[in-house]
Amino acid sequence: MNTRVHHFPQTTEFDRKARHAMASKIFDDLREMSIDGPGVSRATYGPGETTAMKYCADMAQSEGLSSYYDDAANLVIEFPGKEPHEPVLICGSHLDSVPQGGNFDGAAGVVAGLIALIRMKREGVVPPRTIRVMALRGEESAWFGQCYLGSGALFGNLTKDDLERTHRSTGRSLESYMAEAGAKTDTILAGDKLIDASSVAAYIELHIEQGPVMVARDMPVAVVTGLRGNIRHQKIVCQGDAGHAGAVPRWLRHDAVFATADLLHRFDSHWAALQERGMDLVVTTGMLTTNADDHAMSRIPGECQFCLEIRSQSIDTLEAFYQLVRTEADSVARERGVQFEFDERSLASPAVMDDRWIKHLLECCEKNGLEAEPIPSGAGHDAAVFANAGVPSAMIFVRNENGSHNPNESMEVEDFMYGVDVLHTALLEPPL
Amino acid sequence: MNTRVHHFPQTTEFDRKARHAMASKIFDDLREMSIDGPGVSRATYGPGETTAMKYCADMAQSEGLSSYYDDAANLVIEFPGKEPHEPVLICGSHLDSVPQGGNFDGAAGVVAGLIALIRMKREGVVPPRTIRVMALRGEESAWFGQCYLGSGALFGNLTKDDLERTHRSTGRSLESYMAEAGAKTDTILAGDKLIDASSVAAYIELHIEQGPVMVARDMPVAVVTGLRGNIRHQKIVCQGDAGHAGAVPRWLRHDAVFATADLLHRFDSHWAALQERGMDLVVTTGMLTTNADDHAMSRIPGECQFCLEIRSQSIDTLEAFYQLVRTEADSVARERGVQFEFDERSLASPAVMDDRWIKHLLECCEKNGLEAEPIPSGAGHDAAVFANAGVPSAMIFVRNENGSHNPNESMEVEDFMYGVDVLHTALLEPPL
Repeated sequence: MNTRVHHFPQTTEFDRKARHAMASKIFDDLREMSIDGPGVSRATYGPGETTAMKYCADMAQSEGLSSYYDDAANLVIEFPGKEPHEPVLICGSHLDSVPQGGNFDGAAGVVAGLIALIRMKREGVVPPRTIRVMALRGEESAWFGQCYLGSGALFGNLTKDDLERTHRSTGRSLESYMAEAGAKTDTILAGDKLIDASSVAAYIELHIEQGPVMVARDMPVAVVTGLRGNIRHQKIVCQGDAGHAGAVPRWLRHDAVFATADLLHRFDSHWAALQERGMDLVVTTGMLTTNADDHAMSRIPGECQFCLEIRSQSIDTLEAFYQLVRTEADSVARERGVQFEFDERSLASPAVMDDRWIKHLLECCEKNGLEAEPIPSGAGHDAAVFANAGVPSAMIFVRNENGSHNPNESMEVEDFMYGVDVLHTALLEPPL
Repeated sequence: MNTRVHHFPQTTEFDRKARHAMASKIFDDLREMSIDGPGVSRATYGPGETTAMKYCADMAQSEGLSSYYDDAANLVIEFPGKEPHEPVLICGSHLDSVPQGGNFDGAAGVVAGLIALIRMKREGVVPPRTIRVMALRGEESAWFGQCYLGSGALFGNLTKDDLERTHRSTGRSLESYMAEAGAKTDTILAGDKLIDASSVAAYIELHIEQGPVMVARDMPVAVVTGLRGNIRHQKIVCQGDAGHAGAVPRWLRHDAVFATADLLHRFDSHWAALQERGMDLVVTTGMLTTNADDHAMSRIPGECQFCLEIRSQSIDTLEAFYQLVRTEADSVARERGVQFEFDERSLASPAVMDDRWIKHLLECCEKNGLEAEPIPSGAGHDAAVFANAGVPSAMIFVRNENGSHNPNESMEVEDFMYGVDVLHTALLEPPL
């Protein structure tokens, strides 16, 4: 992996064109060092994420910015403000990606903060408050079945069960990966907070939009009003009875695949019906498989395993749909003589962004000549963890085609630079 | 692997008790040499199958019976009869198993023929016709997605496409496995018959019952009237679009898992409806999986892969259901904006057993004090290949609990010995 940092000419001249070139180069470097098949893979608390952090830390150092890793091994790049004892401003996002995912989901927010700080440094501007750019660990649930690991650790949210979660491929525990990355797992396991919410004036996260709204409305930058929460099960196992496919009559069959197909089809039908009634809801089974050790074409499938994710902006909708899930699972189990075994569910609460900061970000857009609108976020982000911990939080969305969590995500660096401008203005003139 | 053969005392005294002990020992040895987790794995044209064949060949040799491997690497144990130039009698079955399957599916028929010959040899009886006990290669579709490989090769049924099929785990071609096992793949690829159907007076196969009928009717031995055929697809791929689960609205989603669940649920519903109308039909999707390279909890599944098997005693029912399958796949594809890609379908025709031999086997049951009934076979067997090639064929079923293709299949050796008695009588007094 290439962790070399390209040293940009250190002139006081750091105009928009130069900033644009720097951003392009950083994104290209990040892509190159984590390329995997058609996309990029930067595994949570794994080498891909760590290498990307090291790259950003080196970049900061070469620009005269200091950085360190906190007790959860999150990267912190700090720029001291005029009032060093007052609550700080944090901006940032994450550097991990889903397997064979896109290059911008997460990385955009870290790079935006970094470029904003480099601009202040080069231009000799000192912000009113100390600013920390954070690259938070493990935002993606793809690797350990749980999201918000780095931000969750900040506020003492991680439990022993969380740290015992295992890696999707290696089966090794999250705890061992965290320790390897330099995190103090004892502190985290004790539930100690690594940061005091009252010491943070605000958390601002720039992120690509993962839906099609901004492309449709021709809007390079938008401000987020609120974030969906989710309920997740990493592993639900349907247990039936294996047997010879040709020899067991239908009425004696306990077929795990047809039972699972029945259940998933019910989830999908309920989702369609509730959405028609105006509820905000998304239901996804992203992983589904029979048991590869013994499944065969001529064998009645005795086991089928899948995951489930429910998203909504409303905690009530989340809980209501979850009750439907359990009720339908019981019903299919009874009708077909199978069992559904659910692992521990995880809940990430929906979050509301801070009104004052929403207004402030919209004003900063205007100051930069942008007509931005407030829109909701269909996906969850680390900002939800800060908001739910009591930190005034806000998000800047940057237009992006083809969604995210796939290799085709496509953010124009020109759009990104508008987002960086807004962030830069917002950090220099905070509503305190 | 232990291929040592226990040498039984070679006295002329080879009573039922001694034959029972020999059968038990052989089954124990076969299990021991192929144990895998909770069951046994004897892979088609793989080391497990070959080792079991070597064991049977050694056993035959130690009893003074000659054996050889034919050009498809099937094992043939031969006992010359009084009329060596007349058409021969073949009995046998297969020695491969599904992964982590049971010890008796297949092996019972080979061991039965072996013990019948050993009894003739020890008792100095010479049968009217030459008898060949065959251990046929590759009856199970689990390893290469195609069944009846060894028996199919006998009658020139294997195509180039068949030999290019790949192993479920290693991805290596069937052709390379066949060559490794000593088969002459050039001869097989040329479609040359390894055996002339008119040189075979009859094919008799003893096999465990794989359904619950004989247990329910308290019947240790039964005679088979006909065998189900099947239509199979080893791989059907649903192609949708991957994307961030939270960010793509429902109407823009092309979700491969919900589309597949919808389709499988339709198959299951049609099956239930057609069976209620009295059709003989079985539908199975034994393998189902999202793409493990990139699936994730928070990612819309872009791909879902599954297999499909349809069984019936009626070729018309097979074809009628197959048309439903394709029509429903087109319908789901249109409604959900996904595509279903079908690999080449394989067809194994249903088969009817020979009336004269059915009658003969029923009489042999009576001679051995057994009240046997004729029953259909829900599963396919090598006997179908012989029957469809024009060889008068028949089958003896032995009672077996818990079905087959699973580690819990459970045949009593006492029941098996009744089957061996019937086979022994049938081979010595053939209806010619």
